Amino acid sequence: MKITILSLFPEMFEGFLNTSIIARAIKKEQVSVEVINFRDYTLNKHRKVDDYPYGGAPGLILMVQPIADAIKALKTERSRVILITPEGKPFVQETAREMAFSEEYDHYILICGHYEGFDGRIDHYIDEKICIGDYILTGGEIPAMAITDAIVRLLPGVIRKSSSNDESFEDGLLECPQYTMPEVYDGYKVPEILLSGHHAKIRRWRLKESLRRTKNLRPDLLQNRRMRDEEIQLMDEILIEESKEKDP
Amino acid sequence: MKITILSLFPEMFEGFLNTSIIARAIKKEQVSVEVINFRDYTLNKHRKVDDYPYGGAPGLILMVQPIADAIKALKTERSRVILITPEGKPFVQETAREMAFSEEYDHYILICGHYEGFDGRIDHYIDEKICIGDYILTGGEIPAMAITDAIVRLLPGVIRKSSSNDESFEDGLLECPQYTMPEVYDGYKVPEILLSGHHAKIRRWRLKESLRRTKNLRPDLLQNRRMRDEEIQLMDEILIEESKEKDP
Repeated sequence: MKITILSLFPEMFEGFLNTSIIARAIKKEQVSVEVINFRDYTLNKHRKVDDYPYGGAPGLILMVQPIADAIKALKTERSRVILITPEGKPFVQETAREMAFSEEYDHYILICGHYEGFDGRIDHYIDEKICIGDYILTGGEIPAMAITDAIVRLLPGVIRKSSSNDESFEDGLLECPQYTMPEVYDGYKVPEILLSGHHAKIRRWRLKESLRRTKNLRPDLLQNRRMRDEEIQLMDEILIEESKEKDP
Repeated sequence: MKITILSLFPEMFEGFLNTSIIARAIKKEQVSVEVINFRDYTLNKHRKVDDYPYGGAPGLILMVQPIADAIKALKTERSRVILITPEGKPFVQETAREMAFSEEYDHYILICGHYEGFDGRIDHYIDEKICIGDYILTGGEIPAMAITDAIVRLLPGVIRKSSSNDESFEDGLLECPQYTMPEVYDGYKVPEILLSGHHAKIRRWRLKESLRRTKNLRPDLLQNRRMRDEEIQLMDEILIEESKEKDP
């Protein structure tokens, strides 16, 4: 898979591309990531990429020409061209999975905006608009890193299988709390069940704490969940425990 | 305001801190951002920050000691300690605004996780958990950049007032499409109204296109909106136009 990022600030990606799992995946050729400055595609002699909006409004708009020409030069039949913009479809784990395992595309072009955004005619040159959250950022660079990171970590061989499975969102529940050395820190102890060595009980405890966390912190994740029998039973236990806490 | 980022990969932030609006805000002393490696706070001689989870499970868990000791050393009375984790409260524009204009806090400590997450006892040392979206990333570094960026651009003097106001999410609607030079590109024209010079009509057109975009792309943003009279009227026009398109 190849990811091409179009940005006016390629230097922002240096740390990201040289660190950790992404750097390793690039080195092992599990993915190739290129960052291209679309200023290189301007046709005007001042290499200008932005100008004032028609109709009068504060701020500068990114011109359509440099970005459209960059797309034309870089895309192949198996490319998907994605504009990062607050009006895009929310990017969620399911989007990352679709992109990582797509049979239709092996190349994603991520376009990072800046200033007051893109000339509206950019819509004729892209396939999709994506947004990583309901907050405003100064540009699309951080979202491009987030999207790249979320996809690359799912690619075969990038993370050990056992490790990428069991995580928050992947099975629709938040993770249960985990603990490591030491057994006691500042007077706070690791739950005894985890030291018991009783695997079946530990598994059940973990599922229960996952359900409890999800119910308390992200009840929205449970709304459309098809609960298994064991989960229904554990949820009953949680509700009984909580009603006792409230009204002992 | 000061932002302290605790991370095992401080080099990931170099590009971010040296580019664009953040770099300028740091230079102009509108914000100070420090990135600290919490590995520097380990007490064990191998500078180890992670270990296997109790109870057996794949992957490594971040030990509570180095992070807790870093927090104890760095926090002041006006600090808010924030753990970045998928189980956190969703970070939205309102969160950014609260953090930027808080009267209670002038220092945020953002903690970036890695591997399979944090020892559950970290909960005793933090004030809040935050999540930037429903997707899994390899670490908290990209979210820490997103949070920092979203806050810093709101600080007084960082962006021109006129420019930070009128944006997506800030008034609960998506932005209308904008256009800049040239008037025609690849045969695609700028909407004529924007070239008319008629300011009242242009304002009305922009509000209408904002409403149309929001209705089509993010109807959830309209659900709890208190529409003004003009907005109700424009929405009626949009609905009539669309019913004509469907059934001409």
